Formats: sequence, structure tokens, C-alpha cells
Amino acid sequence: MISKKMSELVKNGSAIRAMFEEGKIMAEKYGKENIYDFSLGNPYVNPPESVKNVIFDIIKNEPETFVHGYMNNCGYEDVRVKIAKSVNKKYDTNFDENNIIMTVGAAGALNIALKTIINPGDEVILFAPYFGEYNNYLSNYDAVPIVVKPDFERFSINFDDFEKKLSSKTKAVIINNPNNPTGMVYSQEDIEKLTSILENKQIEFENSIYLISDEPYRELIFEGNSIPYLTKFYKNTFVGYSYSKTLSLPGERIGYLVVPSEMDDYEEIFGALGVANRILGYVNAPSLFQRVIAECVDDTADLSVYEENKNILFSALKRYGYECIEPKGTFYMFPKCFIQDDKAFCEKAKEFRIIIVPGSTFACPGYFRIAYCVDKKTVINSLDSFKILAESFLRA
Amino acid sequence: MISKKMSELVKNGSAIRAMFEEGKIMAEKYGKENIYDFSLGNPYVNPPESVKNVIFDIIKNEPETFVHGYMNNCGYEDVRVKIAKSVNKKYDTNFDENNIIMTVGAAGALNIALKTIINPGDEVILFAPYFGEYNNYLSNYDAVPIVVKPDFERFSINFDDFEKKLSSKTKAVIINNPNNPTGMVYSQEDIEKLTSILENKQIEFENSIYLISDEPYRELIFEGNSIPYLTKFYKNTFVGYSYSKTLSLPGERIGYLVVPSEMDDYEEIFGALGVANRILGYVNAPSLFQRVIAECVDDTADLSVYEENKNILFSALKRYGYECIEPKGTFYMFPKCFIQDDKAFCEKAKEFRIIIVPGSTFACPGYFRIAYCVDKKTVINSLDSFKILAESFLRA
Repeated sequence: MISKKMSELVKNGSAIRAMFEEGKIMAEKYGKENIYDFSLGNPYVNPPESVKNVIFDIIKNEPETFVHGYMNNCGYEDVRVKIAKSVNKKYDTNFDENNIIMTVGAAGALNIALKTIINPGDEVILFAPYFGEYNNYLSNYDAVPIVVKPDFERFSINFDDFEKKLSSKTKAVIINNPNNPTGMVYSQEDIEKLTSILENKQIEFENSIYLISDEPYRELIFEGNSIPYLTKFYKNTFVGYSYSKTLSLPGERIGYLVVPSEMDDYEEIFGALGVANRILGYVNAPSLFQRVIAECVDDTADLSVYEENKNILFSALKRYGYECIEPKGTFYMFPKCFIQDDKAFCEKAKEFRIIIVPGSTFACPGYFRIAYCVDKKTVINSLDSFKILAESFLRA
Repeated sequence: MISKKMSELVKNGSAIRAMFEEGKIMAEKYGKENIYDFSLGNPYVNPPESVKNVIFDIIKNEPETFVHGYMNNCGYEDVRVKIAKSVNKKYDTNFDENNIIMTVGAAGALNIALKTIINPGDEVILFAPYFGEYNNYLSNYDAVPIVVKPDFERFSINFDDFEKKLSSKTKAVIINNPNNPTGMVYSQEDIEKLTSILENKQIEFENSIYLISDEPYRELIFEGNSIPYLTKFYKNTFVGYSYSKTLSLPGERIGYLVVPSEMDDYEEIFGALGVANRILGYVNAPSLFQRVIAECVDDTADLSVYEENKNILFSALKRYGYECIEPKGTFYMFPKCFIQDDKAFCEKAKEFRIIIVPGSTFACPGYFRIAYCVDKKTVINSLDSFKILAESFLRA
């Protein structure tokens, strides 16, 4: 018999993964080209050409026991140096290898941070709508999720509710910037307000409150937008990063965690993070892809595709009568359903061969997520279905 | 401040990793060739040539979004089919893709199994000497380790103590076959006795008791020995496997978990394991190396090197007066120290530039582990140091 905790987790399931699996079944049945599968954040575009070339180079020229061998649990030092330099150059920070830990994607980064700081019963604040997987990561360490209500106007932060939800039990606050599922980016003003509240609450409660910023979509940002680097605003900030989207390598499980030297108890925390990487069974981030990252640290896949998809889809949805806030980044969009029951809405969408994920998966019922990391043709072909879907409700 | 649990884990540390890091510092100081670093199970031999060729082929010919993309959390189905067929052929089993889950090494395999079955407070039996990391994996799920005393005669199983330690709280039993740190292999007779005790206790306690067999060294077996496949003896058996040693790919974090269809609550457990893979933050085993395994499933690195090292080292140590049981597999040896204080003994060894790990790391004080996965020259050059080390105690 499976454990009580797992039994509940399995029951709740992942609606996203369920949709993804269902999409594959529907694709077999109706033909892949006839299914508009917007379920999963599985990048459509190829990695940059450099990834391929660098893999060839490494496999051809580097000693195999080095490339595929164990290294320090925090990752190869030279790789961490290169990442630190790249981040410093882009965001005017001041990191070195002692501020970077290579991880099994951003999921690995978040898990080692939580493993390191959470005592059972500690509260962690999440801003709805949020990536549902955070609930499971918190459950891994018996943290208590405290959900701040959505800010429906801008999908930014509901600061009134946030201040109410902070308590002496608050150990961490997770933000996702840019945001999955809304595609929103927190403005500098939002960040300043957020971190100034945290500063005050740290003093009030005489506790460190850690800000964990989950940033796998950092480079997926649309024209005219920018994302402040959070460690510059608040010293107790972890940044989790992944190359899944930027380099289109989601299956390879490669990312890193940033830990500023100014963080409270930095030495102790950095040491513990390396241990957490080991004992959670990751041991280390996959070695070949660490070496690949060292050479491709400033490259990205052709991410313009996503902005193009966004433009096509967003303007069409508006025409069809969907209510939606225009995304500033990621490859997600989070429109309002025409009925309150988002699950029923997504079921209805399947009739028109559209696969989308209910907002309740993101603690925000009444909405749905479109993951438009698909080819432009699929987006264009899906438009009629989105139109009919809207009409089926507007006419009713 | 880090969590209470992590604080203790960090304090206990990993003696193996500490030795590994110290070895690197000593190598810088005295020159790599003057340090006999036997601390870490980091394979010395190259992967088979096929690994290199297969990587070239895949990168050149396969679609990149497929090779580096997300797949089912259990792994690519065709890869699991190939592994199942390979295991069936070698061990006369009857597995298919529904019995194999691709994991982030054997560490990932053990962790998803434990996450799936353990309720806090459940007892898990370990046979000393054992890989100390099991304590940390158990701690991840608040399982209680129950340690069976060593069988000093054969480093097999102390069956008297084992029977005493089984209780209605026993949820699982972990064995490591072949064994790290002793290099022992459980004989068919041992396995039959072990599983028959488990069968009886399941009936007595009206509980499923899961046997978790950690088998990263399965192919590292010396002439004249063989390893029974445990699922054939006991249906409630998980087998964790890794390609770290067999294919010399420890940094790549690739392995699998075997789950027999006959296992109690198989359907529920298999489903939960996929979920565990996801929510523990692994998400999936690294994708490129899943594809590599599919093509190299029956290959191994040149593992004969380890047997050669064993022969040289074992016969020399016997000559120098060390007490040691001859390993039947792995690349470890577990001799007795000349004093009871194994930590002091390993400190003394450092004076002669030998880096070895104290037996207390493996819940077996008074012994030390030699990881002879190093080049033959290092083994040969170290012999004088081992001789002087012995003499320093025998003369005293």
C-alpha cells in the first residue's frame, strides 16, 4: 500500500500531465495535426545550433571520465564561474562560483532550497495563480502553503491580502517571474513594494523570511519588458533558474540556484544546499549538460516564435470575446472561461480538439491556461476552434 | 537559519565526500601521482566506445525537441521496452515497459520507492555495513532506520539479529547486492533464507514488507560469481539500478527502478512512482542519456580492470598482515583496521598519502573502505604505503 501522503498526491494528480497524456491519445486517434494541444510547457523550438556543436566538441575532445564523472555536489567549479560571470554581465550583480549551485532543473533548485530552510509546519506564501507543482514541493518538506488571493486586475500581487497572510510562521515566499500561468512580469515597483514589506516583517517577527524566485522563463520576455534581478532588492533571495525553456532542453534537467553572499547565514545555507543536492538523490546536475552550459551560457533558442504565437493568439481571442490580460513573457496565456466551472470549460474545449488546462490547477478557478509553445501553424489552425468554443457559450 | 533536520545532516556530513574533497586538496599540494585516493566510487575506466558513437548518432540524426524534450515522467516507453527485454534475456524474468521506470540514477530509484511506500515512523531495515547515504534517504521520508548487526564471518546477513529486528512496523528492507563497502555478493542460499523469513513475517504481521535491492554494481562481479535476480524469489521486490558503474557514467545520473507486476498493489504503486519522480523534482531521468541507454543496453565499460586491481591489492594486503574478506564484486574492499578507532586509522593513513574511508561511515567501526576504481599504477604505487601503514601499527 502506498503512503498516506502519496495517496493524496496521486488523487490530486497533475491536471497538466493528465491533459498532456490525453493529448497524446487524441493525437493518435485524430492525427497529430488535428489536435491543438496547449497542455504542457514543452518547448517547440530547437535548441540553438551551438548546443549541437558543443556536444560534438565535448564528446570528441574532452576526457570521458571527466565529462561523465562525479564532481563536487554543487557542480563543476568552472561552469559555476562562467554562469556567475554571465549573470553579472546581464544584471550588474556580483556573483562568483560560491553563489551558484548546479541543479536538476529549476525543480531541483526549488527543492534543495526548501529542503535546506523548511521545518515541518513552516508557512510558505504562494501568489495565486501559481504553478500547482509548488504544493507538492512544499508537501515534500511538510511546509504549509498559504495562498494569497489573485490580483484580478493585473495578475500582479494582491498586496492587501499578502500583508494579512504574513505571520511569524512565514519562512518563505515563492514568486514565479515571469509567471506561469499568466505570462505576467512583476514590475520594479511591484518588486520594491514586495521586498519592502518583507524587510518590515522580518524586523517585526525577528525572523529571516526567504524569497524564492522561480525564473525558468527569465529570457522569455516580450518586447518592451524587462525583469528586475531580485537579489539586488532583497538579500534573502534564492533564484532558481532552468535551461529548459531558454535552450529548449526540458528533458535534460539542467539549471542552477543563485544564493547571494549577503543572505542571512549564507555559509551555513550554501553548505547545506550542496548536501541537500546529494541526499535528495539528485547527487549532482547531469554532468555533460553542465559542460554544455559552460559553452552556451549566453545563447538562447529562437524565442521570438513564442512572441509571434502570443500576438496571433491574443488578438484573435480578444476578437472572439475572450477576456485576457496580455502576457509580457513566457509562452502561457491565462484567459477567463465563459463559465465559472473551468473544468467543464476545458472538457468542452476538447470537443473542438483544443487541449487546455483548467485554472483551478493554478489555484485560480474560472480561468484556463494556454501553453502556446507549439508551432505557428497549430496556433493558426486552432483559431477557428477557439472561435466556435467562445460562440458555443456566447450564443447559449 | 537552516532547518533542524538539515542542520543535523550537515553535522554528520558525508565522510566519503569529505575525503574526496580532501583528496583533491592533497593532490594539488603533493601532485596527483603522489596521492593514493581511494575515497570515492568514481569509475576510472572510460565508458565503452559505443556510448561516444551513439551520442554522435543521436545528436546528428534525431530531432532535437524529441531528444531533449519532456516525455512521460516514467521515461521514454521504447527505452523501457529495451531495458525490460535486456533484463529478461539476462535473468530469465518477464518484464515489460510497465515494470521499468527511468530514474536519476539508483539514488533517484531508491528515493521514489521510499517516497511511495513510507509513512513517517515506518521502520526500514539495513544490514551493517551499509552505504551511509541510506540513512539520509530514509530521513527524507521520516522512516526509522533499524540496523542489523554485521555478520563478521562472511559479511553476509546476520540472520539471528535480522529476525529480532523485524516488527509490525517494518515497511521495507534494503539490501545492496553486490555490497558497498564489502564487495560481497549474497548467495542464492542467503537470498532464499532472507526472502523466506520475509514471507513468514508478512503473514505474521499481515503487512506487505518491501525488499529494496540497490544494485548499481550488478555487472561488477568477479570470476566465478553470479547474482540471483531478487524479483524471482520475492514478489514485493524493487530493484534499483544505475549505469554509473557499468557504463562509467556516474555524473549523468541515469538508472531505473524495476517494479514487478506481481507486487502487492502493483497498479497503485507504479502510478505513484511516476508521480514521485515528478514531485521530488527529478521530473524525469535525463533525456539524452535515456536515448543513449536504449542503444547501449547490453554494453559495459571494461570492468576487468577492477578485478585486476582487486587481485593486486587483496594479495598484497594479506601479505602485509591486513585481515580482509575477499570481495566477489564491486570495486570496494573492507579490511579491518589495526586499531579499533577507524577514524584515527584513516587519519594515520593520510600521513602515507592514502585516502580511505572509515568503517563507521558504513555503520561498522573498526574497518575501512578502499575504493579501488583507480588506475592500476595508483594501486601498485600505493602498496608500499599500505605496507608502512600496517607496520606502523604492528611494530607499535
